[in-house]
Amino acid sequence: MNLQALVKKPPSWLSGEDDAGGIVVSCRARLARNLAGYPFGTKITDEQRDLVVQQVLAAAKGSQLMETATFLDMSTLDGNERRVLVERHLVSPALADTKGQRGVLFDQSESLSIMINEEDHLRMQAIFPGLGGEAWSRISALDDELGASLDWAFTDKLGYLTACPTNTGTGLRMSVLIHLPGLVLTEDMERVLHGLSQLSFAVRGVYGEGSNALGNLFQVSNQSTLGSSEEDTVEELMRIAEQLVAFERDAQETLIADARSQVEDKVWRAYGLLSNARVLSSQEFMNLLSAVRLGLSLSVLKGVPSSFMNQIMITTQPAHLQAEAQRALDPAERDLRRAESVRRKLAELTVDTEGGAA
Amino acid sequence: MNLQALVKKPPSWLSGEDDAGGIVVSCRARLARNLAGYPFGTKITDEQRDLVVQQVLAAAKGSQLMETATFLDMSTLDGNERRVLVERHLVSPALADTKGQRGVLFDQSESLSIMINEEDHLRMQAIFPGLGGEAWSRISALDDELGASLDWAFTDKLGYLTACPTNTGTGLRMSVLIHLPGLVLTEDMERVLHGLSQLSFAVRGVYGEGSNALGNLFQVSNQSTLGSSEEDTVEELMRIAEQLVAFERDAQETLIADARSQVEDKVWRAYGLLSNARVLSSQEFMNLLSAVRLGLSLSVLKGVPSSFMNQIMITTQPAHLQAEAQRALDPAERDLRRAESVRRKLAELTVDTEGGAA
Repeated sequence: MNLQALVKKPPSWLSGEDDAGGIVVSCRARLARNLAGYPFGTKITDEQRDLVVQQVLAAAKGSQLMETATFLDMSTLDGNERRVLVERHLVSPALADTKGQRGVLFDQSESLSIMINEEDHLRMQAIFPGLGGEAWSRISALDDELGASLDWAFTDKLGYLTACPTNTGTGLRMSVLIHLPGLVLTEDMERVLHGLSQLSFAVRGVYGEGSNALGNLFQVSNQSTLGSSEEDTVEELMRIAEQLVAFERDAQETLIADARSQVEDKVWRAYGLLSNARVLSSQEFMNLLSAVRLGLSLSVLKGVPSSFMNQIMITTQPAHLQAEAQRALDPAERDLRRAESVRRKLAELTVDTEGGAA
Repeated sequence: MNLQALVKKPPSWLSGEDDAGGIVVSCRARLARNLAGYPFGTKITDEQRDLVVQQVLAAAKGSQLMETATFLDMSTLDGNERRVLVERHLVSPALADTKGQRGVLFDQSESLSIMINEEDHLRMQAIFPGLGGEAWSRISALDDELGASLDWAFTDKLGYLTACPTNTGTGLRMSVLIHLPGLVLTEDMERVLHGLSQLSFAVRGVYGEGSNALGNLFQVSNQSTLGSSEEDTVEELMRIAEQLVAFERDAQETLIADARSQVEDKVWRAYGLLSNARVLSSQEFMNLLSAVRLGLSLSVLKGVPSSFMNQIMITTQPAHLQAEAQRALDPAERDLRRAESVRRKLAELTVDTEGGAA
């Protein structure tokens, strides 16, 4: 696998399909699995790690879903290449940074991936756009396929065994990546966060914490993996995500009713800055992108599709910029390159800049 | 004269000719004159004011320069119409606001005008673009033409007599409107202001005082009208203006050498905001316009000519916006209309938004 080629092609889960008017970015399902007969976590030896990799690769080769998947051995990648994989959500920072034999398998679309020898022997992931529920059905299918040839560590009492007890049981972490600028602007986010914390679901800023989440992007995920079925977990998360979408739509309607000019101004200023700035920090970029995405949700600004926004959010991250430049860049150089990349890509779109005039 | 028609047509002194790369907006010459045989200033009666108006109109009619000029009687205009004239620099706020018979005569191009019964019986004004010196030659010619039929209050010892002694002598106030963003950004403006105050010249922000001048626009003018000839005054002001242009160019070169990306970023962000904002206060507008004008001076941004910038500076003022809307507008409405006007006018230009890429 050529990482340069990877960088040029967006993961398919950024397609913006089924995105509830720009509010939902993606839905992710992750299963933690371990092989019976091998120690977990830090107890495993290097030789055993090698055997785990071999077993998983053999099982994947024999599966339909991962038959043609790409395997990347982390030890053969340099630091920036590993960061590219982190930025694409193909591997965790933990997998990128730890020592020892470890790697990642992923399909062409980057929707399905398996981290090998992260905290658990396998961390299988499915990411799909919107709230379609495909993430769960696909990860479940992959689990079945691999389970046909791999012997999962499992007990009837506890379910799937994992390195950390917080994952034991279903081993399932479902999450939804959701854009909530209306709730943040109307200052209702704290109340919503408080309400969700009463349930067994966590809401985190994707980049940054609490209601100060960078770019108003939040990840909602289940916290419990014991005592409820996978189907219940998925269903409950979907219900919560749909409720958040409804709350967000209400907040956006309130904004438009109370302050249409100010909201339009905010959206178009953000578009104007993204289209023209010569220096863009990642923080400013994320906040401006959030305003443009709000414009899409409100139909204030048409012509910048959510797939476009999802993709530049990935491709303007530091490792992607460095991969494109084919060299290390200091932060000031990255801010120049980020601005240039965003500007050139926006210039390829057709945006009616009077589209949202009152 | 239809004021609606006036509002639609820019004064010719905004043409941006001879503007030293966007640095010099215009040059103005003003002569204070009074008629012998009438009281000055507050001592004059209403009947005498009427006679002054009649004499001046008759003299203008008989002149070549003002033969076809328009006369507007202030008492026939409503408040917004008077403000339009102030915004176009055709009359002073004093003439607009005082009671009694008073008016203004101006030619089609709005380059030559005469306020009648302001502080003095006549305040003649010539405004021309750039530093061409035409303002002085034209006002001098007008003075000669009118002097052939009007009897100026004059003594050999003092020169021309005026209502306020600060104008006595030549009655000449020469001024240059100049854009000095480089000196402000490099924080050299205070030093320059201090230097000029040693000479008998004043530097004022056009809208705002000192180095906090709104839009970085400064008016440099002579302070003394006694003891030096008109020609010396004109020559000295031109020399000072040329020196300021040279200082400003140095400052701009320093900026580009030390911080090209930041300067380009500032210029293009301003362009992006002016092209897209839905709400623009006059203060923000002036500051953004200054950044775009800096871009023109530095050839960072091409395609927004200084004539365009000069004109929108005039036409986005409150009375002009209200004249266009044909009704009173509250400040929030004006900010919406200002943004819309600027945006639509910018959209008519062809600007290569990658013109200044490094």
